[in-house]
Amino acid sequence: MKNIYLLGSTGSIGTQSLDVLKKHKNDFKLIGCSLGSDESKNKNILSTFKPEIACLRFENQIKTYEKEFPMITFVSGDQGLIDLVRYPKQGLVINALSGSTGLIPTIEAIKTSKDIALANKETLVMAGDIVKEYLNKFNVKLFPIDSEHSALWQTIDHEDKLSIRKIVITASGGSFRDFTREELKNVTKKQALNHPNWEMGAKITIDSATMMNKGLEVIEAHHLFDLDYDAIETILHKESVVHGLTYFIDGTIKASLSVSDMRIPIAHALFYPKRVSYDKQLELTNLSFKPMDYQRFPLLKLAYEVGRKGGILPTVMNAANEAAVKLFLDEKINFLDIETIVFDYVAKTANIKMPTLEEIKEVNQNIQDEIIRKYEKR
Amino acid sequence: MKNIYLLGSTGSIGTQSLDVLKKHKNDFKLIGCSLGSDESKNKNILSTFKPEIACLRFENQIKTYEKEFPMITFVSGDQGLIDLVRYPKQGLVINALSGSTGLIPTIEAIKTSKDIALANKETLVMAGDIVKEYLNKFNVKLFPIDSEHSALWQTIDHEDKLSIRKIVITASGGSFRDFTREELKNVTKKQALNHPNWEMGAKITIDSATMMNKGLEVIEAHHLFDLDYDAIETILHKESVVHGLTYFIDGTIKASLSVSDMRIPIAHALFYPKRVSYDKQLELTNLSFKPMDYQRFPLLKLAYEVGRKGGILPTVMNAANEAAVKLFLDEKINFLDIETIVFDYVAKTANIKMPTLEEIKEVNQNIQDEIIRKYEKR
Repeated sequence: MKNIYLLGSTGSIGTQSLDVLKKHKNDFKLIGCSLGSDESKNKNILSTFKPEIACLRFENQIKTYEKEFPMITFVSGDQGLIDLVRYPKQGLVINALSGSTGLIPTIEAIKTSKDIALANKETLVMAGDIVKEYLNKFNVKLFPIDSEHSALWQTIDHEDKLSIRKIVITASGGSFRDFTREELKNVTKKQALNHPNWEMGAKITIDSATMMNKGLEVIEAHHLFDLDYDAIETILHKESVVHGLTYFIDGTIKASLSVSDMRIPIAHALFYPKRVSYDKQLELTNLSFKPMDYQRFPLLKLAYEVGRKGGILPTVMNAANEAAVKLFLDEKINFLDIETIVFDYVAKTANIKMPTLEEIKEVNQNIQDEIIRKYEKR
Repeated sequence: MKNIYLLGSTGSIGTQSLDVLKKHKNDFKLIGCSLGSDESKNKNILSTFKPEIACLRFENQIKTYEKEFPMITFVSGDQGLIDLVRYPKQGLVINALSGSTGLIPTIEAIKTSKDIALANKETLVMAGDIVKEYLNKFNVKLFPIDSEHSALWQTIDHEDKLSIRKIVITASGGSFRDFTREELKNVTKKQALNHPNWEMGAKITIDSATMMNKGLEVIEAHHLFDLDYDAIETILHKESVVHGLTYFIDGTIKASLSVSDMRIPIAHALFYPKRVSYDKQLELTNLSFKPMDYQRFPLLKLAYEVGRKGGILPTVMNAANEAAVKLFLDEKINFLDIETIVFDYVAKTANIKMPTLEEIKEVNQNIQDEIIRKYEKR
């Protein structure tokens, strides 16, 4: 029986993680979780899984929840996430938080020697070097949950790093893959949220359409697999069947394929190195591959540049993107404004070579606040 | 420095094995080899690699060769192959012999505790169970060189056997993949030898066109990976880019891809677990997959039946096919006669449940002799 902490349990990855835990209830015990804004979802999770500790959004919710669930310890807010992962029972932390909020809980979990199953790519984008230092220091393992990274992990596992020539991350192209840049000018939020292959949260669905998501994944892969950016490629593969490929120096390529269901990489991270039964089978059909088009998807090109430069710039890019996507989802800006805002902030922010965690937090917060303030009034 | 014995050094796999040895001359020493009928090829190998022992086709060649290469011990014929692998220096035996001739040398090599890199699929088709007994008894490793099996090995390596749902072997479809059965009636030897993707020996090129090759590979995979026939599928994939796929119970599929160059699987078997540099890189293009058509390729269906029944029947099928392909290459029979002959012999031969090596040798010889005698006169 493995103890599990689940951060972001009401989101898309969170819900699917709970599915996996429910299916394998003799293997896992949910010790703690962080909840969202949907009351009925929250209460359903609490009564089904009966965790020992739960983190609410706001302090003023605690009283009501305590009355209904007297056996559960409630905490709240950003500090609550930290309290949650510091809870003194060993276990695996699934970080399924969305956006930059995910960083600090990852760090705090590592500090208490809990292994991490990471769906929150911002953790590595913002502070990959610092996270890796902590992983080493506390001898903690980090398993990727992102489907591409899970796929790559499986093709790299047990291989000598010196044997790897490069890795290739596939991209479906997102909701607007067949749109020209001209056609992107007038797309709506509803169109953007209609991803052809994956059911995902709103933020990542928009990031898929701008290809920012692939950019974040490239930076994530750089940190996870300790590979130069020159050894990380992306390719357009609209079927989302092949999730990642590793090219070896001897001419062999290993690819990892599966249906588009996040429960597969989640289960892989939770059960590793064991594999457990999953019912749907992939029907092998024709697969198409097209070189990445960086003109069409400039944010991906920017992510490479920013990743190569490192320092505070990945945080800047991520913060600007996070705020811009929020504004687009609130229908305050147009789709193409996302790119403009991100490029603008990356261009005008001076790099800090080896930022501290404090600096990362601060820059992230300041940029997001500034962008939201500026555009929210319009 | 690893000692190498190469059986079948003048054939297609043999020549490419020598390429690999030449490229990595500080890693390998060719201790012994068996030669073919081409004098200049033979002598070129002997003067380039200076083996300690070499096996000639016929005893009457020995004198001449001894005069020219006084430092080399010469042996000849079937007994010579046995003498060769019994040579008292440890090393790896590459069995690149074509056809049923390959069986006994494999067995004898195992008996002297030499590891095997196996390109000769007939070894496992005819006597898979016996070979595996010997491998266990003498604690010998057997590495596949067949491109499909090398690919599958790479996707299975380090995985728990219980995690495997099935494996899929790809088939290009061979020279006549777009021909109807009607159109097969009048095809010529020259057309048959024109394989779209692979440069291979004549026998295997014909076997690709009849899909017998895939049938032999299915039986080979059954023995190599210890999998039920129900867990071994074949699929049409005309690009010959994906060579094998392993489906795991958790919904993940691992595929192994490479350009069509036998030096890749050869080097993999020779260097395992190390990978060494190879210069050509696969350009990922669109990949097509089509369900196998057993009506169109009845020999593949037969191979499954024969494999499932086991006993002497795989030897019968293989012997009939070997003789029939020889007759087709000698232009004594038509392309479709190959199928007729194989079906005929499998149907009329009574099975022997657990044949001895002696019985396998005898049945193989008798059937081949009978078929050749019957058709050669026409």
